[in-house]
Amino acid sequence: MDFTDSVRADGIVERRFALGGVPGILWTPESASPSTPVPLILAGQPGGLGMERMYPRLLGRARHAAASGFATAAIELPGSGDRPPLPGMDQARADLRRAVAAGESVPDDVVDRLILPLVDQAAPEWQATLDALLELPEIADRVGYSGGVIALATRLAATEPRISAAGMFAGSYVPRSTMTEARTVTIPLHVLLQWDDEGNDRQMALDLFDAFGSAEKTLVANMGGHTGVPAHAGDAANDFFVRHLR
Amino acid sequence: MDFTDSVRADGIVERRFALGGVPGILWTPESASPSTPVPLILAGQPGGLGMERMYPRLLGRARHAAASGFATAAIELPGSGDRPPLPGMDQARADLRRAVAAGESVPDDVVDRLILPLVDQAAPEWQATLDALLELPEIADRVGYSGGVIALATRLAATEPRISAAGMFAGSYVPRSTMTEARTVTIPLHVLLQWDDEGNDRQMALDLFDAFGSAEKTLVANMGGHTGVPAHAGDAANDFFVRHLR
Repeated sequence: MDFTDSVRADGIVERRFALGGVPGILWTPESASPSTPVPLILAGQPGGLGMERMYPRLLGRARHAAASGFATAAIELPGSGDRPPLPGMDQARADLRRAVAAGESVPDDVVDRLILPLVDQAAPEWQATLDALLELPEIADRVGYSGGVIALATRLAATEPRISAAGMFAGSYVPRSTMTEARTVTIPLHVLLQWDDEGNDRQMALDLFDAFGSAEKTLVANMGGHTGVPAHAGDAANDFFVRHLR
Repeated sequence: MDFTDSVRADGIVERRFALGGVPGILWTPESASPSTPVPLILAGQPGGLGMERMYPRLLGRARHAAASGFATAAIELPGSGDRPPLPGMDQARADLRRAVAAGESVPDDVVDRLILPLVDQAAPEWQATLDALLELPEIADRVGYSGGVIALATRLAATEPRISAAGMFAGSYVPRSTMTEARTVTIPLHVLLQWDDEGNDRQMALDLFDAFGSAEKTLVANMGGHTGVPAHAGDAANDFFVRHLR
């Protein structure tokens, strides 16, 4: 892991890194040290926007987490930012737009082609990032995953044993295989749902929440659209990680 | 309002009262005074159990609220404790048991006969209690309602303008007229749902949440049955009242 840049502001150290061609950012509270290592939250992002466009929101989440004594890491998703496009993605997006414009429900195979290549490539990239970050002496081996594409969050929650709690955001398309994978998830979950999310099928989000195998899971639904998550929902998600990572 | 008893313990003053034959309890933080009056939370209860059987849980809620600087009041519901039974209630309960034993869904008219007489009598009793409590100089005119029979919570949220925020517990039968009344509710709501509640129709609870007219409403669903509400859900409900009553 090559750190290319380091900035210190407001009690947080921000370090840019690159790992196997994947750029990322690590934020740690200044208090983090080898003798007082801090838990780590892997901050997911929506697909397609890119990490630089998401930077202000990621920084806000990192600051919020740092106030509770957590480090936060983000990486550029495959096909986002300056990374090469994923094969077949232009076609999948065109098929999606066509279905939405026609007022049709999005066919399952389009959802699969839109989401699964991203999940299949991003999950091992997150795992490689985690391998590297856990070698830093100031990072404790208590890890949560938060937000982003819910199919990717589900894949990581189901298959990466070092992740011990996950915050999810019901707001993207859900492949059929994700519904099956959800039944194998057993870690504590905190799922946000925006009740009037224009890009989200509410019933599918409720079905996915129901499918998760976790004995401890909380659904928090608020009014408003995809970007209208109220501040108190961020506080509640933070409280969830405090309960499970500290 | 006649206060019949007063006990002081753990920083809380507990006073028993009676108003028009309805017994009640008021808990105030010792810090409450005419110069520093405290907001008031009206603590609802499930029907039928009676205030004395509910006392330990009510006291726990009052202590939790007092820690945030709130007073809490509870009153005996019509037909509960030592109060006379509501007319027709034995028949309605027998019809309910018969439907449940037969594995049938409970007919709408049985729900109406079971819930509406309680709501129709309890709502004005809560309002008379509120009239009296708001005359106490240590009680501020910032009032929330929390818990109990959700049809009663909906009636009060819809019709009592002095209640400015309501916490609700989706866990009882919902008359059809309550669904209609819900559309007229506009105050902020915090609705708890136990996902596997054996005495609750999950879809009806979601439909009722959807029906509320409030621009600000949050649904918090947790795993487990009716009595399995996790401690963090109590904290989140408390945070809701802190946001709206302080």
